[in-house]
Amino acid sequence: MRKWTDGRPGASRRSFLKAGLAGGAALAASKAQAAGDPVITEVQDWNRYPGDGVDVHPYGMPSQFEADVVRRNVAWLTADPISSINFTPLHSLDGIITPNGLCFERHHAGAAVIDPKEHRLMINGLVDKPLIFTMEDLKRFPRYNRVYFLECAANSGMEWRGAQLNGCQFTHGMLHCVMYTGVLLKDILNEAGVKTSGKWVLAEGADASAMTRSIPLDKAMEDCMVAFGQNGEALRTEQGYPLRLVVPGFEGNMWVKWLRRLEVGDEPWQQREETSKYTDLLPNGKARRFTFAMDVKSVITNPSPQAPITHGKGRTVLTGLAWSGHGTIKRVDVSIDGGRNWHTARIDGPSLSLALHRFYYEFDWDGSDLYLQSRAIDEKGYVQPTKNELRATRGENSIYHNNGIQTWYVNKDGVAENVEVS
Amino acid sequence: MRKWTDGRPGASRRSFLKAGLAGGAALAASKAQAAGDPVITEVQDWNRYPGDGVDVHPYGMPSQFEADVVRRNVAWLTADPISSINFTPLHSLDGIITPNGLCFERHHAGAAVIDPKEHRLMINGLVDKPLIFTMEDLKRFPRYNRVYFLECAANSGMEWRGAQLNGCQFTHGMLHCVMYTGVLLKDILNEAGVKTSGKWVLAEGADASAMTRSIPLDKAMEDCMVAFGQNGEALRTEQGYPLRLVVPGFEGNMWVKWLRRLEVGDEPWQQREETSKYTDLLPNGKARRFTFAMDVKSVITNPSPQAPITHGKGRTVLTGLAWSGHGTIKRVDVSIDGGRNWHTARIDGPSLSLALHRFYYEFDWDGSDLYLQSRAIDEKGYVQPTKNELRATRGENSIYHNNGIQTWYVNKDGVAENVEVS
Repeated sequence: MRKWTDGRPGASRRSFLKAGLAGGAALAASKAQAAGDPVITEVQDWNRYPGDGVDVHPYGMPSQFEADVVRRNVAWLTADPISSINFTPLHSLDGIITPNGLCFERHHAGAAVIDPKEHRLMINGLVDKPLIFTMEDLKRFPRYNRVYFLECAANSGMEWRGAQLNGCQFTHGMLHCVMYTGVLLKDILNEAGVKTSGKWVLAEGADASAMTRSIPLDKAMEDCMVAFGQNGEALRTEQGYPLRLVVPGFEGNMWVKWLRRLEVGDEPWQQREETSKYTDLLPNGKARRFTFAMDVKSVITNPSPQAPITHGKGRTVLTGLAWSGHGTIKRVDVSIDGGRNWHTARIDGPSLSLALHRFYYEFDWDGSDLYLQSRAIDEKGYVQPTKNELRATRGENSIYHNNGIQTWYVNKDGVAENVEVS
Repeated sequence: MRKWTDGRPGASRRSFLKAGLAGGAALAASKAQAAGDPVITEVQDWNRYPGDGVDVHPYGMPSQFEADVVRRNVAWLTADPISSINFTPLHSLDGIITPNGLCFERHHAGAAVIDPKEHRLMINGLVDKPLIFTMEDLKRFPRYNRVYFLECAANSGMEWRGAQLNGCQFTHGMLHCVMYTGVLLKDILNEAGVKTSGKWVLAEGADASAMTRSIPLDKAMEDCMVAFGQNGEALRTEQGYPLRLVVPGFEGNMWVKWLRRLEVGDEPWQQREETSKYTDLLPNGKARRFTFAMDVKSVITNPSPQAPITHGKGRTVLTGLAWSGHGTIKRVDVSIDGGRNWHTARIDGPSLSLALHRFYYEFDWDGSDLYLQSRAIDEKGYVQPTKNELRATRGENSIYHNNGIQTWYVNKDGVAENVEVS
């Protein structure tokens, strides 16, 4: 009898077979693979030969069969990849936690690689005692863990001008939700002592764009965090390693990454990213400014253009995400006929304030055309508007803060497409 | 003025500098790196040159500075890596979510690599209608998302014979906690129709060990899941991709990975893993069997042998994890003097049933010797015992189900060590 160790060390089953050490097994495997139709009456290859041992993968990666579950950028959207977006593949995910490797990234001068030993956070401005913290200093403050969504203000921005991008990864994928670990911004501000004249906080990044945004002091003292962890481990490089600001419910651009400085002042700084960018030009030529909170919103992630129905008629699971910068989601309605009839979706999993909510709607598909829509309602009673309702008040010059209802058209073959219904 | 694009395309800042295209910057960088002491008055390198764009990392990985945050195996513990353990680095993590790449893995014949298109789940035995499901079939049942801890019954098993392994990664690292996505076991059993004579369910894996365990039907119908997702994305290979059983609160061995068959029967099957293994030999020669639920337990993750105190006296954050196979954690007590005095720890983050709970205790360290202990109490009122209390009732022949209180000794230099106090 051949011992299993014949193909080792370091040889996976695949290379074991390739090496031709077990001709019979290789034949059986290639037969099963070539057939297309699964051979369930035979003992499968993975049941016959051992897999990799625990010495092979100190840090694990997804299965080779999940190779298409990746972030994607859209080359024509921006002039250069260092100031661009890598979208979360929402159509391939479930639950409310985004795995760290798939959290969308948006940079203004690429992802800074920072040695945490050399990193510092400074607090200056209208404080009693300016301070400089090392990473170790910060980790000596009380730590907290909170699950929050982060949405870029430009998420769904292309949709102001009608259905554009064919897939929820691209229309809604500037969105992720992780458990952050960090300290409260108010705790370190209190350590410095904010003067009574202090009303705003400037957050500044250590990357080459030196990203800077003004945060109202009230928000800073309410629930903002200075975070060094996401989903248990250290922040990822592209999420601001070793330190980022967390501004729950507010637009993602304010969650300054690679955070190196907090300045307390008595008025906003009027930085580029709060004047020429991240403002909303109205029909009358004026611009909405400091529109921080992300309004109530939802999207159906399956079925969707990148995730068509492949099983034909019958039992169908519709699922999606809902969120609000004003708290929890109270209800999600779903329509399969373009908004004529609405059904209450089942919200599943923990309902955490300012976090993603997962909803499902199970139905029997009769094979006819579908116009799928979802409409979220948050704890404050805000109802997600249609895109046309948004346009009626804000015009069509906007890029940011599009929380309109999304429609996917699904044809009889299950193929889905981004459309608008009036 | 040199344009940033000089070092591109594809060149990271590091390779840019190495290539010698910017001699002055390279000098400044190497000076800062060589000095050891951070140069905070200079503009740092990562603030001067852009980082990687969004086209570089479709699936993200941790920062290069986190290279020591990995799973580790202990070569001498088992005869071969294909039937061994890769431990979660608990001392490097925070919060209650374990990132997918760091979830401990334990195999009995290596990690099976399964093509989901060829994978099937069969239900047979005492059912009205035997069934075979494809992965797509399963995903048409209502889906649920639940956060659960998974602990191997052998976690802390070496500690029965006194303090052994120097680090919570090794003493307690057969433990992880993720959000699972899947369908309810009861839903698919009901689809097959369980006969009234059915009392147990056999779960069988498709790996080369064909892992098999008997699950009481009551538990199967209560809260078990057949899961295909973890933390939003597909299960990882080493966690049973594409399908695993989730048996909340019960010992990890029962959470059969690469799940391919469920057989309903009227009594347990007396498989190897529930007779010669995963039983507890008592002093009288009898063995406890079917000891499924993991009892209330906790461990301090920082400070600990792999995570000493490096900042000297003063403000110190102590943190750890608590969990119970009987529900939520009601309270965690912490002692810094080996159990003479106890302090109530702060439990932070969501308190979810059968999930990890994160606790903190902040104190001013006066620099004297510490004997750190934690003691968890669950919602049923179970109190975590000392190791000696456990030994008094179960003797010292056991390997499994050691939920005794762990002690770390910390000396004046902050160095920590695994010890026992009587």
